[in-house]
Amino acid sequence: MTQLLVAKLGGSHGIDIPAFCADAARVIASGRRLVIVHGGSHHTNVLSEQLGHPAQFITSPSGHTSRRTDRRTLEIFQMACRGQLNQAIVEQLQRLGVNAVGLSGMDGRLWEGQRKATVRAVIEGRVMMIRDDFTGTVERVNTTLLRTLLDAGYTPVVSPPAISTESEPINVDADRAAAMTAAALGAETLLLLSNVPGLLREFPDESTLVPTVARAEIDRFAEFAQGRMKKKVLGAGEALAGGVRRVVIADARHGEPISGALAGAGTVFQ
Amino acid sequence: MTQLLVAKLGGSHGIDIPAFCADAARVIASGRRLVIVHGGSHHTNVLSEQLGHPAQFITSPSGHTSRRTDRRTLEIFQMACRGQLNQAIVEQLQRLGVNAVGLSGMDGRLWEGQRKATVRAVIEGRVMMIRDDFTGTVERVNTTLLRTLLDAGYTPVVSPPAISTESEPINVDADRAAAMTAAALGAETLLLLSNVPGLLREFPDESTLVPTVARAEIDRFAEFAQGRMKKKVLGAGEALAGGVRRVVIADARHGEPISGALAGAGTVFQ
Repeated sequence: MTQLLVAKLGGSHGIDIPAFCADAARVIASGRRLVIVHGGSHHTNVLSEQLGHPAQFITSPSGHTSRRTDRRTLEIFQMACRGQLNQAIVEQLQRLGVNAVGLSGMDGRLWEGQRKATVRAVIEGRVMMIRDDFTGTVERVNTTLLRTLLDAGYTPVVSPPAISTESEPINVDADRAAAMTAAALGAETLLLLSNVPGLLREFPDESTLVPTVARAEIDRFAEFAQGRMKKKVLGAGEALAGGVRRVVIADARHGEPISGALAGAGTVFQ
Repeated sequence: MTQLLVAKLGGSHGIDIPAFCADAARVIASGRRLVIVHGGSHHTNVLSEQLGHPAQFITSPSGHTSRRTDRRTLEIFQMACRGQLNQAIVEQLQRLGVNAVGLSGMDGRLWEGQRKATVRAVIEGRVMMIRDDFTGTVERVNTTLLRTLLDAGYTPVVSPPAISTESEPINVDADRAAAMTAAALGAETLLLLSNVPGLLREFPDESTLVPTVARAEIDRFAEFAQGRMKKKVLGAGEALAGGVRRVVIADARHGEPISGALAGAGTVFQ
């Protein structure tokens, strides 16, 4: 059976998108099936600033940071992530002979979940309740649509937002959505590629890279994770628990990020 | 066999998108298959202004007006049309129980054509050559992808840009792209819905609506067309020549635009 791979490309500053696309084309040409997931933080931040609605971030009581997503922010996110970055990736892949199809989690209810009724945020030391946030977590993946496209020779390129059970767009963490997608599709490997070389024992010292984490040890190693890395380690654990054989957190700033991660660069969870 | 319908919704100011979506849901519930095509002029104009890159329009020597599409304009168009309007239509349809999938003409090379090497524009009375315009005309429709989605129960919602043979995004006229799509799919009917009631003998006097145009008479009636209507009449002729049985140019500012046009409101070409 053809090996299925889910590769999540971070949306942060410093990612080498042409290098990622070139490597994706090589990996597909070698006979693997690929589902690409991406975020769009950097593009959203830039567009938000240009449109006079600057990005805001909130921290949950458990220490996770996420984008404050009111309806206008969601609209800007859709323009930047869906209209700009997603279509730029599709364009580059098409130029390399990969028949890419861009999708958001709303299209075909690809990623469905509950919208959070309230979001808890720590503001000036106090826990506040935010009620107009459009965020949630992916609970169901429309694997039929993804398989239909893969079977017909297309490469899906998927980005948030997801869709709520009430059909509202919801911002979701793209690392965890990619983990859910890999598990639902029964993918062999999940790659979480971003602007860091992997999990660092002492962030930001890149010489302290953790090369491997056994699945039984994830909770212990999660304590090293800072900021966005917390969600990646959480996603890695969720993917392994969902049946994915191997998760690699690796660097997408240069080189051949997919091939490199498949060869063991970065932090391998298995 | 299930009746297939292509409905093109104009992207101009004044279109009642919720009314269109509600009517689309009714038409699909009644057993018809629907492919939706839309433009995004108004949203692009607004976003262009907000981003300090105001829209410009050029007039060809034959009198057709089109958007001046440099690379930055194309990027803004993708944000507005693909990221904003397309996903707003998908969201409304999903809320109404229609499993919509948004696509641009680039996704899966859905709409492929040649990019124009040069665009001729009349500027201050002289014909000028523009070389950095990203525009063209759809020459091939990926009907396999559309049929795959329709067969699986999805409603495709398609917008420009299309993709060039060199895999560049190209702005294309959405009326003519819809006509090409209807012909390629062997659709029974094409609806071109916008912010006018149909072809007017004396624009903008709406009491001069032309109710029917026989296919042999299109060239004669085309002389009444002003501005954007020229492309609609051209598209109507191309669709009929391509085997579509009936084309209706009708109003999408209120009411039930799809059902109304199917019942004969507007200008019927057949």
